[in-house]
Amino acid sequence: MKLAIVGATGAVGHELMKVLEGSRLPIDELQLYASPRSAGKQMDFRGETLTIQAMPKGAIPADVILASAGGSISLEMAPKWVEGGSVVIDNSSAFRYDPQVPLVVPEVNGEAALKHQGIIANPNCTTAIAAVAVYPIYQKYGLKRMIVSTYQATSGAGQKGIEELLEQTRAELSGETLAPSAFVHPISFNVIPHIDAFQDNGYTKEEMKVVWETRKIFGDESLKVSCTAVRIPTQRTHAEAITLELERPATPEEVRELLAQAAGVEVRDDVAQKVYPMPLTATGKYDVEVGRIRQSLVFDQGIELFVAGDQLLKGAALNAVQIAEYLHEHGALK
Amino acid sequence: MKLAIVGATGAVGHELMKVLEGSRLPIDELQLYASPRSAGKQMDFRGETLTIQAMPKGAIPADVILASAGGSISLEMAPKWVEGGSVVIDNSSAFRYDPQVPLVVPEVNGEAALKHQGIIANPNCTTAIAAVAVYPIYQKYGLKRMIVSTYQATSGAGQKGIEELLEQTRAELSGETLAPSAFVHPISFNVIPHIDAFQDNGYTKEEMKVVWETRKIFGDESLKVSCTAVRIPTQRTHAEAITLELERPATPEEVRELLAQAAGVEVRDDVAQKVYPMPLTATGKYDVEVGRIRQSLVFDQGIELFVAGDQLLKGAALNAVQIAEYLHEHGALK
Repeated sequence: MKLAIVGATGAVGHELMKVLEGSRLPIDELQLYASPRSAGKQMDFRGETLTIQAMPKGAIPADVILASAGGSISLEMAPKWVEGGSVVIDNSSAFRYDPQVPLVVPEVNGEAALKHQGIIANPNCTTAIAAVAVYPIYQKYGLKRMIVSTYQATSGAGQKGIEELLEQTRAELSGETLAPSAFVHPISFNVIPHIDAFQDNGYTKEEMKVVWETRKIFGDESLKVSCTAVRIPTQRTHAEAITLELERPATPEEVRELLAQAAGVEVRDDVAQKVYPMPLTATGKYDVEVGRIRQSLVFDQGIELFVAGDQLLKGAALNAVQIAEYLHEHGALK
Repeated sequence: MKLAIVGATGAVGHELMKVLEGSRLPIDELQLYASPRSAGKQMDFRGETLTIQAMPKGAIPADVILASAGGSISLEMAPKWVEGGSVVIDNSSAFRYDPQVPLVVPEVNGEAALKHQGIIANPNCTTAIAAVAVYPIYQKYGLKRMIVSTYQATSGAGQKGIEELLEQTRAELSGETLAPSAFVHPISFNVIPHIDAFQDNGYTKEEMKVVWETRKIFGDESLKVSCTAVRIPTQRTHAEAITLELERPATPEEVRELLAQAAGVEVRDDVAQKVYPMPLTATGKYDVEVGRIRQSLVFDQGIELFVAGDQLLKGAALNAVQIAEYLHEHGALK
C-alpha cells in the first residue's frame, strides 16, 4: 500500500510517523509532504531515510492520504486527492459536519468508515477521547445527558503551543514576561476558558465540536451534551471531568467492569493506591485512561468519571491510523 | 479592638495581614502568633513592626482571633480561646460541620454569624468562591442541581504548594526531576484529580466539602451538588466550571444583570473582547470573577458559567476579615 502524510513536520505529523512505525498496515511506500520551506528535510521511517516533498498542486500518487495540515488546505485539496483515486483520512474539522463524510472513532462506529465517498473525517481530540470512554456506557445503560469540563494541553495548538508554554514559563520563572502569540492570553501558570472561536450561543467552537461530533459518532442527534473547554498549562494529554445521566441505573462497579472490557480504554481507578487518570501517566499511551468512577450526587441514575487521553494519539494520529487499519482489515483498501 | 492572628507566617496569614491593612475594623492592637520556630520574627503592619510570638497554651488576650494554623490546632485550642472571652473565626475545617457553629459567607448568610457561640467557621475556598457567584441565582431562580469541576491552584496547599510547583517546574525545564512532597504526584505540567482524602463514596473530602458546605451556607439541605476537584499547575486563584439546573427559566442576559448588582462579584463576560474569568486577572482581587454565562445545552432551564476567585482572599483571608467586619458593623463585637 502507498501511504502519504500531508503535514508531516507538525506535532500530529510526528506522531503519525511513530504510530505508523508500529502499525500492522502493509506499507510499501510512505510519502511525506509539508510546506515548501520544509521540503528537502529528512525523516526516518522503519530504518529508511525519507525526504519531505512540497505538496503538489493536484493529485498525490497514494492509496491513502493522512491529512494534517489544517482545515483550509484540506478543504481545497482533499477533493482533488479523491479525484486522483486516494482515500483521504482528514484530521481537520473541514469535512466533519458534511453528511456525506463519515466521522469515525473505530471503537465506536468503525463500520461508518466503510461507507466513505473518498473522505473520512477524524474527530476533534476532546471528542474522540470522551467517546471511547462514554460509548460503552451509552450502549449498555443509555444516556440522557453528558456534561464535560476539559483540562486541555497546549500541544492542542500544535508544536507552537507547547513551545509557547515552555518559553513563557521559563521567562516567568526568571521574572520576565513573554507576550502570547499561540494563545490569546498568557498560558504559563494561567487557565484560559477559550479554545477556538466563540459562537453566537456563547459556546466556543471547541465546545460545540464536542456536542456536534459526539452526536454524529454515536449516531444520536437527540443526545444532550454540554461542554466547557479550558486550556491549562500542561504540555500534552487532555483530561476531562464527565458527568453522565443514564437511562438505566448502573453502579460504579458495573461501569468499571464494563470499561475494563472496552477497546481503547485503560481503567485506572484505585483511589486507595492514588491511581487515577493523569496527563503524567496517559502521555504516550494508546489507551484512554478512565477513573474516578463514582455515583453522581445530582442524578438518581448517574455516573461521574475522569478521563485522560493523549490528544496527539487517540485524539489525532492514532485514531487516523486506526481508521486506515479498519479499512484495510475490512478489504476496503487496495 | 484587640485582634490576633494565629498562623501569621503561613500563606493565608500573609494575606490576612494585607487585608487587615486596608480593613475598616478599628484595630487598637494586632497580635501575631505562629509556631515556636517563627517566634521573634517581625512583620510590618500599618507602619509598625510587630514581633511574632509563640502561641500560648491557653487563652489569648484578644477580642477576635483569626485562626489559620490548621485543623488540629483549631480543634484543640479554639474552645480555650472562647473560654478566655475571644470570638474565633476559624479558617480550618475543624468546626464547619458542627451544627452549633455558623459557617459564613457574608454576602450569602452574614446574619448566621450573629448567632455564634464563640466560634464562626470560614468555608472551604472552592465553596466560598462558588457561593458568591451562585447564591444570587439560587435566590432569584431556584436551584435544582449544581455540577462543579474545579481548576485549583497549588497555593491551596499553602506556601509549600506554590514552592513545589515552581521548583518542580524549574527542574523539569532543566531536564531534571524533583520528587513530590506537598502533592502525592508531580504537579508540574500535570493534573491531579485528588485533593484531600478519599471518602467511602469515591469522592474526595475536598469535593464533599463543596457539597456539605454549599448546603449549610445556603441553608438548604436538599440541594443537589456534585463536584470534581482537580489540582492544576497554577500558582494562585481557583477557577471553576459550573453547570446549574434552575427551578425557573433565566436567560444569560438576566443572569448577567443580576450578578452585575451582586456583592463580591465582578462580571467579566465579553467574549468578543476575549474577556472572561482567568487566574491571571482574578489574582489579588477581592471580587470573584464570573463569566462565560450561557444557556445550558443539557437542561431546559439551565445556566453554565465559569468563575475565578483568589482562594487566598475570598476563599480564606478576605472572607474571615469580612466576617469580623460584619460582626463589628452589627455591634456584635466589643
